[in-house]
Amino acid sequence: MSNNLLEEFKPLFYPRSIAFFGVSQRSNSAGNQFLRVFQIFGYDGKIYPVHPTANEICGLKAFPNVKAIPDTVDMAIISAPAHTVPQIISDCVEKGIPAAEIFSAGFREVGDAGRKLEEAIIKIAKGKIRIVGPNCFGVYSPKGGLTLLPGATYPKKSGNIGIISQSGGWVTDLIWSSDAFNIFFSKVVSYGNGIDVDEISLMEYFKYDSETDIIGAYLEGVKDGRLFIKIVRSLLGKKPVIIWKGGLSETGKRAVSSHTGSIAGNKEVWEAFFKQSGAVKVHDFEELLDTIAIFKYIPPANYRKLAIIGGGGGVGVSASDICEKYGMKSPHATDSIQKEISEFLPQQGTSNKNPFDIGAPSAPSSILRNVLEIACKWDNIDAIIVNRMFFYGMKELMNEDVPEQNKRVDTIIEFKQRSNTKPVIVVLEDLAYGQNRIGIEISRRQVRDKLLHAGIYVVPSMLRAIRALSNLSSYWEKV
Amino acid sequence: MSNNLLEEFKPLFYPRSIAFFGVSQRSNSAGNQFLRVFQIFGYDGKIYPVHPTANEICGLKAFPNVKAIPDTVDMAIISAPAHTVPQIISDCVEKGIPAAEIFSAGFREVGDAGRKLEEAIIKIAKGKIRIVGPNCFGVYSPKGGLTLLPGATYPKKSGNIGIISQSGGWVTDLIWSSDAFNIFFSKVVSYGNGIDVDEISLMEYFKYDSETDIIGAYLEGVKDGRLFIKIVRSLLGKKPVIIWKGGLSETGKRAVSSHTGSIAGNKEVWEAFFKQSGAVKVHDFEELLDTIAIFKYIPPANYRKLAIIGGGGGVGVSASDICEKYGMKSPHATDSIQKEISEFLPQQGTSNKNPFDIGAPSAPSSILRNVLEIACKWDNIDAIIVNRMFFYGMKELMNEDVPEQNKRVDTIIEFKQRSNTKPVIVVLEDLAYGQNRIGIEISRRQVRDKLLHAGIYVVPSMLRAIRALSNLSSYWEKV
Repeated sequence: MSNNLLEEFKPLFYPRSIAFFGVSQRSNSAGNQFLRVFQIFGYDGKIYPVHPTANEICGLKAFPNVKAIPDTVDMAIISAPAHTVPQIISDCVEKGIPAAEIFSAGFREVGDAGRKLEEAIIKIAKGKIRIVGPNCFGVYSPKGGLTLLPGATYPKKSGNIGIISQSGGWVTDLIWSSDAFNIFFSKVVSYGNGIDVDEISLMEYFKYDSETDIIGAYLEGVKDGRLFIKIVRSLLGKKPVIIWKGGLSETGKRAVSSHTGSIAGNKEVWEAFFKQSGAVKVHDFEELLDTIAIFKYIPPANYRKLAIIGGGGGVGVSASDICEKYGMKSPHATDSIQKEISEFLPQQGTSNKNPFDIGAPSAPSSILRNVLEIACKWDNIDAIIVNRMFFYGMKELMNEDVPEQNKRVDTIIEFKQRSNTKPVIVVLEDLAYGQNRIGIEISRRQVRDKLLHAGIYVVPSMLRAIRALSNLSSYWEKV
Repeated sequence: MSNNLLEEFKPLFYPRSIAFFGVSQRSNSAGNQFLRVFQIFGYDGKIYPVHPTANEICGLKAFPNVKAIPDTVDMAIISAPAHTVPQIISDCVEKGIPAAEIFSAGFREVGDAGRKLEEAIIKIAKGKIRIVGPNCFGVYSPKGGLTLLPGATYPKKSGNIGIISQSGGWVTDLIWSSDAFNIFFSKVVSYGNGIDVDEISLMEYFKYDSETDIIGAYLEGVKDGRLFIKIVRSLLGKKPVIIWKGGLSETGKRAVSSHTGSIAGNKEVWEAFFKQSGAVKVHDFEELLDTIAIFKYIPPANYRKLAIIGGGGGVGVSASDICEKYGMKSPHATDSIQKEISEFLPQQGTSNKNPFDIGAPSAPSSILRNVLEIACKWDNIDAIIVNRMFFYGMKELMNEDVPEQNKRVDTIIEFKQRSNTKPVIVVLEDLAYGQNRIGIEISRRQVRDKLLHAGIYVVPSMLRAIRALSNLSSYWEKV
């Protein structure tokens, strides 16, 4: 079965030629936007616009119908009105096109008339053409040159993360966030109503896809719960699966029905699903993003015991509260560790007890280096979180010696590069400043990117760091 | 009593002359940084550096001791080593200085020796000089020209929010966030160990301070719980008090002891405090910031029933889940409202049911205007949240017609300016992009600032919007 699905989905992810339906002579129509986004992104296969009367659309020769295209076509991209879609699918089948994305909405999510259209399509398509959608954003597959609205400038770089989503909006946010985490995707599929390609076939595809190692999902409903548990469970310990289930509340369930017409399912059923499948449960977009990313950066293990280095005192108190909320610990430093740290850390306004307040953000890099080393050899510590070391505004605000700030960044990178060190995570706080302080954001991104490219996981808040690490630990505890 | 405190604290907040202790001939010492920050900020009273041998410090004439200053001195700012502070305070008392900030750490938070120093200071100071600190960041009072490290470029504009905090770090983050919310402060006090001026006297001061209407606090411990409840309770319905209590967890309690040496207190005691006092309970920095800000923007009332306008489908599902978590509702649109909306909203890929997916982020401003109006006259709605209307990347990514985006902004501002409308809140999503997309952040801040200056509350996520509105509603329900 594995080989079949890999083969069957090939034209969905790597089509050599695409026919576009629903394009028009109005340059701003949704169909034309889709086409233009592909052109800007740089899809390098053949593109065939289909239009009853136009000779040319977006600078390309147009064809009155799909049969008139003098070439094999691997994929159909359809943004035509819902009621015209069954006929288009029928034409595609006749032409022998093996794959289609139906962006158009107006199907079961709007009621009975739409449901009938879906049924008609299913009947025509079955066994002949694989369909993503309808009511979806489609496929982003950087290796195949495929993108989705509004991804004209999405990363062209491919990575090892696969995404399955019933929401197009969340998918676009995930892909935009690539740069901020230096993570990249193998394939991202927004499948909407999922009349054919769905959570089950996509999960199975990713199971066998050699380009995908981590799987993230936003789901509203699952058609065959038993089968879905079985597939997700079979991935446990091999490819982590992180799932955000939308619509677990009563109001959310109702919204699911207007969105993708799915059956949202009960909270208890989903609790059981997470327990039995071993998937990581996340609760919102940021947690999904952070948790997917941490699996890329931090090797498999349990990281419950944390050294938190930075400052100041109130930040340490809050970090301790967050630890407890997420089942993590920041063990109290032993007397001998306190003594060792006191030898180089000034006593006043600092703490040698963990959380270690080392006088951030002005601490000399030598102190940071020493505390990192002590945390590393302390056997009651699994991982290290560094925070408030880069007060990126320091330079413009106080003429802080910038070489010292750069040295702190280098200290962390050197520490990470040594063998036998413990994982280190950096919290780079993301305060919202005024327009006139955009320079702070620019230097923040510079520091962030330097750390990310050295393989260090960077997140914008202590809560997000600890929560992601807790999710990672829970996963590996189950394996 | 009220008048006494207003009078007594005057030199703390509006000193006409300041003596700086702990400055040195090394230009980068902490004491000199404090002094320079005041100079850059533009404190316009007299500054007298005190140093045993120097003639000049930071370009100002230095004095060998405080008695040698040929002028009355309103305030002492002290960053000298802990063991020298009792003598300094004694000298200040002799000179008749009525107020002091002690930045120096190394007191009760480090153990018995430090506790003895505190006791010595208390004995010397009692009834003669009011003290903020030790182990604190001190006072930011823009009207009085006072700032705190690293606030050389903090806003000089004053506002109606007063802050009481045992953490200097969180206080600096709050003040940096002024611009992002267009909120400003009357006085911000980081009081650290609080040996004299403390949560009780500050709360009482703010109660009578005519410049302060909203009071925010980060607290680690309270010395006299009964009295504190009484004062906070007396403010209920007059000046909202929003409190983040750090160290409610077991690990957090330990961190409190190393930070300010306070007694953190039990969870149950604090639950009772919030119940009896009517203060708004918040759980982290962002919630404190958002909640303080919403009291400035949204008039007193209960706003449990929300219309959520924007999109897309997955975003609406998640918003519904968040509503339920925070005790809010997004009522299902009645048949007549659905019908009314269907007359102008294309059926496909949208929702007329609430959350209203109006095809964001490309929806025409006319549709936004119509839905705003319908939500406004719908009697089952208390407030409106607009989201995903400004896909600020749209222009550079897709050549979206920018005038249309500007029109959506103007539509919301016009709606807000009309009389008899319901409060409208805007969620301006804050995605973390790559360095090469800094232009998106620049345009995001432009849109944000235009809305803020029109009096519209803007937050970076749906969760933060709904949580803040829930806190606001809970408060006014208690009054």
